[in-house]
Amino acid sequence: MKFCSECGSASMAWQVPAGDNRPRHICLDCNAVYYQNPKIVVGSIPEWEDRILLCRRAIAPRHGYWTLPAGFMENGETTPEAAERETLEEANARIEILHLYTVLNIPHTNQVYMMFRSRLLDLEYSPGSESLEVALFREEDVPWSSLAFPTIEQTLRLYFEDRRRADFGVHLGDIGTDWRDKRFIKRRSRD
Amino acid sequence: MKFCSECGSASMAWQVPAGDNRPRHICLDCNAVYYQNPKIVVGSIPEWEDRILLCRRAIAPRHGYWTLPAGFMENGETTPEAAERETLEEANARIEILHLYTVLNIPHTNQVYMMFRSRLLDLEYSPGSESLEVALFREEDVPWSSLAFPTIEQTLRLYFEDRRRADFGVHLGDIGTDWRDKRFIKRRSRD
Repeated sequence: MKFCSECGSASMAWQVPAGDNRPRHICLDCNAVYYQNPKIVVGSIPEWEDRILLCRRAIAPRHGYWTLPAGFMENGETTPEAAERETLEEANARIEILHLYTVLNIPHTNQVYMMFRSRLLDLEYSPGSESLEVALFREEDVPWSSLAFPTIEQTLRLYFEDRRRADFGVHLGDIGTDWRDKRFIKRRSRD
Repeated sequence: MKFCSECGSASMAWQVPAGDNRPRHICLDCNAVYYQNPKIVVGSIPEWEDRILLCRRAIAPRHGYWTLPAGFMENGETTPEAAERETLEEANARIEILHLYTVLNIPHTNQVYMMFRSRLLDLEYSPGSESLEVALFREEDVPWSSLAFPTIEQTLRLYFEDRRRADFGVHLGDIGTDWRDKRFIKRRSRD
């Protein structure tokens, strides 16, 4: 932050405020403190029979790569509402949310992904303004080498593994630069 | 926002940016766009035998009321790390995270609560700077009428109900102004 959005001062500093334990953007003139916190990315895995819906990105980052419909959660909505909205915006697709599926922490980008299993309600989908194309894929046809983000690959690998066992849980895990080595923790009601 | 934190201009507006579909704080001079998104509140239910750890708040809001250790997730950490940190800060208590337990959407405050079941590692707890006192409670001793937030009451009611059945799942639900009427959706791996 170059200027204080409260008083317009240019006397901004990166300091630990009194009573706090980590540095924040603070204004040395009006003492305003600005907190920055992780953002929530919400999306869905739309299912149709044995296929799932993927979107090819028309925007940066990862233009041209395939992803599950997902995006930043907005103020005033719930996580399932955000998943439905993102699926409608990116794929013009209507879904019914089934359940929360993966919660993926990405500490180096200050994000938490929350992906929901969902049921595609009809086949009237089409590319939204942020997508080049939208298509249904069977497991053997998923473009693994052209997926946009590690969170998408991890969610899909867990999904197909669970589907073979017909046993879906809620997965909690971390995506680091070493994400392929990370152990994902599957939490069941039996735990 | 009264001033642009990029250029210091006072020409701030609340408008829908080009290509967007909802209003944002934008600077009419440098065209900077400022996004506001929900914040994640992370906490834990520390268990010791048949008791759970609660903290009495020493800070606003709800000063003097009881809560589970919880607070805003910080950049650079994972959700379980945030739960461990908040439990250490508010109760000087060391825990082992067991699993994600409740995910509670609060659209009217732009928050998502994520509460983890955890195991208290020792009894060397004490009030942190944000707590007046810290204590272990059996179900029959929980101060239900003096709990700080609906998210805490909802999480504890679900917790004791699940504990009686020895069957814990991951709960997803919404906390509205009508939160007591809301149906909570328990998602199991069998779903």
